[in-house]
Amino acid sequence: MTFETDNIAAMDGYVSGEQPNDPNTTKLNTNENPYPPTPEIGKVIAGFDVDRLRRYPPPDADGFRDTAAALHQIDRNNIIVTRGGDELLRLMITTFVDPGQPIGVTEPTYSLYPVLARIQNCPITSVPLQQDWKPPENFTRRLNDAGVKVTFLVNPHAPTGVLLDPSQIADIASELNGVLLLDEAYVDFIDPAKRYDSMPLIRDFDNIVILRTLSKGYSLAGLRFGYGVGAEQLILPMLRKTRDSYNIDWLSQDVATAALQEQSYAKDTWSKVRRERVKLAGDLTRLGFSVIPSETNFLLATVPLTLTAQALYLKLKKQGILVRYFEHQGLDDKLRITVGTQPQNSLLVAAIADQLP
Amino acid sequence: MTFETDNIAAMDGYVSGEQPNDPNTTKLNTNENPYPPTPEIGKVIAGFDVDRLRRYPPPDADGFRDTAAALHQIDRNNIIVTRGGDELLRLMITTFVDPGQPIGVTEPTYSLYPVLARIQNCPITSVPLQQDWKPPENFTRRLNDAGVKVTFLVNPHAPTGVLLDPSQIADIASELNGVLLLDEAYVDFIDPAKRYDSMPLIRDFDNIVILRTLSKGYSLAGLRFGYGVGAEQLILPMLRKTRDSYNIDWLSQDVATAALQEQSYAKDTWSKVRRERVKLAGDLTRLGFSVIPSETNFLLATVPLTLTAQALYLKLKKQGILVRYFEHQGLDDKLRITVGTQPQNSLLVAAIADQLP
Repeated sequence: MTFETDNIAAMDGYVSGEQPNDPNTTKLNTNENPYPPTPEIGKVIAGFDVDRLRRYPPPDADGFRDTAAALHQIDRNNIIVTRGGDELLRLMITTFVDPGQPIGVTEPTYSLYPVLARIQNCPITSVPLQQDWKPPENFTRRLNDAGVKVTFLVNPHAPTGVLLDPSQIADIASELNGVLLLDEAYVDFIDPAKRYDSMPLIRDFDNIVILRTLSKGYSLAGLRFGYGVGAEQLILPMLRKTRDSYNIDWLSQDVATAALQEQSYAKDTWSKVRRERVKLAGDLTRLGFSVIPSETNFLLATVPLTLTAQALYLKLKKQGILVRYFEHQGLDDKLRITVGTQPQNSLLVAAIADQLP
Repeated sequence: MTFETDNIAAMDGYVSGEQPNDPNTTKLNTNENPYPPTPEIGKVIAGFDVDRLRRYPPPDADGFRDTAAALHQIDRNNIIVTRGGDELLRLMITTFVDPGQPIGVTEPTYSLYPVLARIQNCPITSVPLQQDWKPPENFTRRLNDAGVKVTFLVNPHAPTGVLLDPSQIADIASELNGVLLLDEAYVDFIDPAKRYDSMPLIRDFDNIVILRTLSKGYSLAGLRFGYGVGAEQLILPMLRKTRDSYNIDWLSQDVATAALQEQSYAKDTWSKVRRERVKLAGDLTRLGFSVIPSETNFLLATVPLTLTAQALYLKLKKQGILVRYFEHQGLDDKLRITVGTQPQNSLLVAAIADQLP
């Protein structure tokens, strides 16, 4: 006999990319930043007084909130700190969507969203993207017609890397009846020449929450640290009611604050990733791949017709190179490849070239 | 306008004990261990290679699970690691209780349980304890009659410190139709002469999950680290479906593993707490308090009739001594006092003596 609810018993859990223990793996499958986090973190950890762990941590992580507020020129009360972006995504559903009410996404999108919706027993309203991987004209109408309460929109888009500009997001928010969760997990890798800045949107709209994470831009996937930014009336119920109290430990608060303060270090890694992104996209194109222009730290590349994407994924894996293959309609002729360091990318390109006729 | 669901909009969040920043406060209000964590943690942190933070952490925290499995002589698959006990409590509801289905508790109990039930829109079936602060004979019948899916039972009990022995818990589990969450947050402070050991229950019953935390016994409230122990078919759906993926960061996994390995250090703090508990109970009794015999690191003490509990709480607070006062029927003539170090307890006793005629 099972004690699970019928809903949980019938669902499948989220399947993340492979996380091998072998340090010799060339890991280009889960979009980690290929460069290490700022050395300042080493100092913070080395200087940490362990006796502080005896007491409960600052419940709202106000030290980090103040640092983030200064960075984004917003107020502390517009920020909630969460265990990675994942916790914020979950809280958006718990707080704003009753079981049975629909949640909106694009097709394709980050594969975690439907799993979180399912846990809350919420149906998904999925709107296919256009050929250019952008939402269609009738996107908001379809979501509103379905009665969608929360829409998850990742920008730059995963798994394509395609960017919407803030005016397009403003249009969506202004038309939506529900709340828009703008998932900016990869925002740090956008070309600065684009002058992308979505933060003013939280002042103009009372229905936008922006998700940020330190996992990619700050090379801290192992820390599990993210935050949400939005109008106070959206942030407050998550902060005061639905999140677990004391959700962020002392050490993480100190480490994350130091990482966010080291903007110039982080920006240097972003610029290196962009340089490598251009090079890798060029190399793949020369090998016959069709590569979607990306504003993230990954590339979605269509595999030349001489080979299936799945076969190439498996052959690379055999050589210790992991990339991401999605067994999903519209994606199963493509590979999602995290931009690595120059030596990693060269290794990958050489390994792919070996497989082509 | 609010975007919150009606249920969330109508609820109040959990209110924890005060967490003042002033290091001069004598903090006897939230049951932290008064002794620092093992110095081994300092070594672990100092030796931590920050480059590891670049990658995602081991998703299931298997290093810690193996250490805990060896300690309790159980299998890794009987364990789920969570962000403090709080995350496990939440997962028990998400996984085993549909919205609208009732959750069982005793009255009084840990005040977080009803808040978590409310977030899931679940009614509470609350069964008053007897005069001896133990569940009444008809406890399980009342819970079964109400159709309760999950029952939260804290043992030793909070806020009284009263202990049920494993045979009483076995009786409850065998009679309950739903799942029993046995919250052992304070288990480490039980007198070893009692030979309390509930772990065999998870083999005998397929409906028990035992909650453990490193917050109290291991002096790590600031780390946010707990775990659940139970039959594999109870643990697995929480591990694979309902918890946030990568819920535990790298650093916490290393720190918690080191703390659990240092059993002799931890046991020494537990024994010191017990010694101080006896002394403090004696001192309070001499001052006219009625003190419930406690197997935890706190005492629930009825304030002498010459003074109200609230007045005493406020007077102590003015002097920088924090204890816990519950504005709650049956508790509002009492104070819950965390057992501190010898100097802290002496300071408290002297301050109380000053207030009595």
